[in-house]
Amino acid sequence: MEQLKVFAPATVANLSCGFDVLGCCLDSVGDEMLIKKNDLKTVRITRISGQDLPLEADKNVAGVAVNALLSELNIDQGFDIEIDKKIKPGSGIGSSAASSAGAVFAVNKIMGEPFTKQELISFAMKGELLASGNAHADNVAPALLGGFSLVRSYCPLEVLSLPVPEELRVVILHPLIEIKTKDSRSIIKQNISLKSAINQWGNLGAFVSALYTKDYDLIGRSLQDEIVEPIRSILIPYFNDLAALVAFNGALGFGISGSGPSVYALCRGDKNATKVKNAIQNFYSDKMIDFELHQSSINKSGVRIL
Amino acid sequence: MEQLKVFAPATVANLSCGFDVLGCCLDSVGDEMLIKKNDLKTVRITRISGQDLPLEADKNVAGVAVNALLSELNIDQGFDIEIDKKIKPGSGIGSSAASSAGAVFAVNKIMGEPFTKQELISFAMKGELLASGNAHADNVAPALLGGFSLVRSYCPLEVLSLPVPEELRVVILHPLIEIKTKDSRSIIKQNISLKSAINQWGNLGAFVSALYTKDYDLIGRSLQDEIVEPIRSILIPYFNDLAALVAFNGALGFGISGSGPSVYALCRGDKNATKVKNAIQNFYSDKMIDFELHQSSINKSGVRIL
Repeated sequence: MEQLKVFAPATVANLSCGFDVLGCCLDSVGDEMLIKKNDLKTVRITRISGQDLPLEADKNVAGVAVNALLSELNIDQGFDIEIDKKIKPGSGIGSSAASSAGAVFAVNKIMGEPFTKQELISFAMKGELLASGNAHADNVAPALLGGFSLVRSYCPLEVLSLPVPEELRVVILHPLIEIKTKDSRSIIKQNISLKSAINQWGNLGAFVSALYTKDYDLIGRSLQDEIVEPIRSILIPYFNDLAALVAFNGALGFGISGSGPSVYALCRGDKNATKVKNAIQNFYSDKMIDFELHQSSINKSGVRIL
Repeated sequence: MEQLKVFAPATVANLSCGFDVLGCCLDSVGDEMLIKKNDLKTVRITRISGQDLPLEADKNVAGVAVNALLSELNIDQGFDIEIDKKIKPGSGIGSSAASSAGAVFAVNKIMGEPFTKQELISFAMKGELLASGNAHADNVAPALLGGFSLVRSYCPLEVLSLPVPEELRVVILHPLIEIKTKDSRSIIKQNISLKSAINQWGNLGAFVSALYTKDYDLIGRSLQDEIVEPIRSILIPYFNDLAALVAFNGALGFGISGSGPSVYALCRGDKNATKVKNAIQNFYSDKMIDFELHQSSINKSGVRIL
């Protein structure tokens, strides 16, 4: 195989009670990437359309991730990477993760799959380290594995795939203001109260249970975050109004996607998701802030070949 | 119905990654309680054998729990409570929870079950408040419901029952030194690092998942506690030696039971549990500390009628 075209999906990380450990994969938003072998023994980003991002391989998350993979394989095959960037950088729905995950997925396929998808996660995390200063896995893991990913442990890395209740839908509002992950991380307190932490892990345990039992109401009750959301939500215009609005319209849960500024609403079924999306549309339309709205199923397979 | 005799089981709370939210119910250790209607319109503790505990109803956890229940019912029926106390107070395996849970279970049955088991939890928690200064639910919930209980939320109270993989066994070592729950709580730091909290909730999420998928190895890997155990384990003689010993003998996981001094080892199957129990027996026999050892299945039903 000489080349491969893939769809690299957007993802929602830091899912409320699961800061740094829980993410899910979206279906309707993602980049397209074309990865080709070259004869130059180096990795090149030959084209990025749609966004102004660095073409130097060592400054581009896809380049860094692929080089991490190739260096583990210890071979001198080069690759050209073209990215049709549809996920806006700094949006909070895993823009860098999509590029990293898509690139290592494609290169691994072209090379005859020397690595499992689980193993690819750590290569893709090198891209996250470049993008945000932190090698978190809760975007790249669901981008590669699909569905819901839970990071049990970072050292050693262990990621679990959790079941996806069929009727879950995600609505994403992306206010077009940029919050860099690095900045968004810097405002988080590095010490938290034990009491809040106990509430958080009670909710995360319950959320995991609810995925297995398909208890949609429990999914909703568990999607709480009293640790990061109270701080980061300040950066997001009309966050509290949106929370009230989507709850009123029957969404199961609501929170910050990744490090923002996007927010997500988790809904049961297409009908409710559409209702919630329309309510957000109406509310945000007169707010003098440009925005994008997405409605998506949970993508169960992650990066896929086009 | 005029009277009821019940078995009120011991429980393991604060299960490693699930401090304050996760507990399980034991089968082979527990109190026996006889609860009878009386004509005095008051609750009396008429006999406690085996341990020196207060007979005044307002100083006894069973009395306090039953009075909480009766006050909710707003009736003036009185009860006599006899307790054959087999779980040592201060042992860390839910001695007070067994008395509270057994008493409210029996009174509720005698009164024609006005409350669900879930509802009984909050009455039994009044006993915990008396015993430890903290109305935690991770002993009384599994004592009432059986199996593994997860406290999603304390306010409002919501407790989930989690599945019990059939082969799980628990070995309990109770070194006969007394640590009061109150004292053991007072040494815990009220602020923790976000990093440790993230590890903790990653592990708790994984533990819950592993119960559903019956992944015994993952159960073992998830049973970690970097928040409370490093502090409380100092109070438990030979804690680190025991951890190494039971790991060497194939236990899945190991940690402090409740607030100690008991420790638990979770094992797969009777054969391994017996091996682990024997290894602890041999190790602790020459340590000049009296101790008790228990081996138990997970009790799936909680308090039961005898």
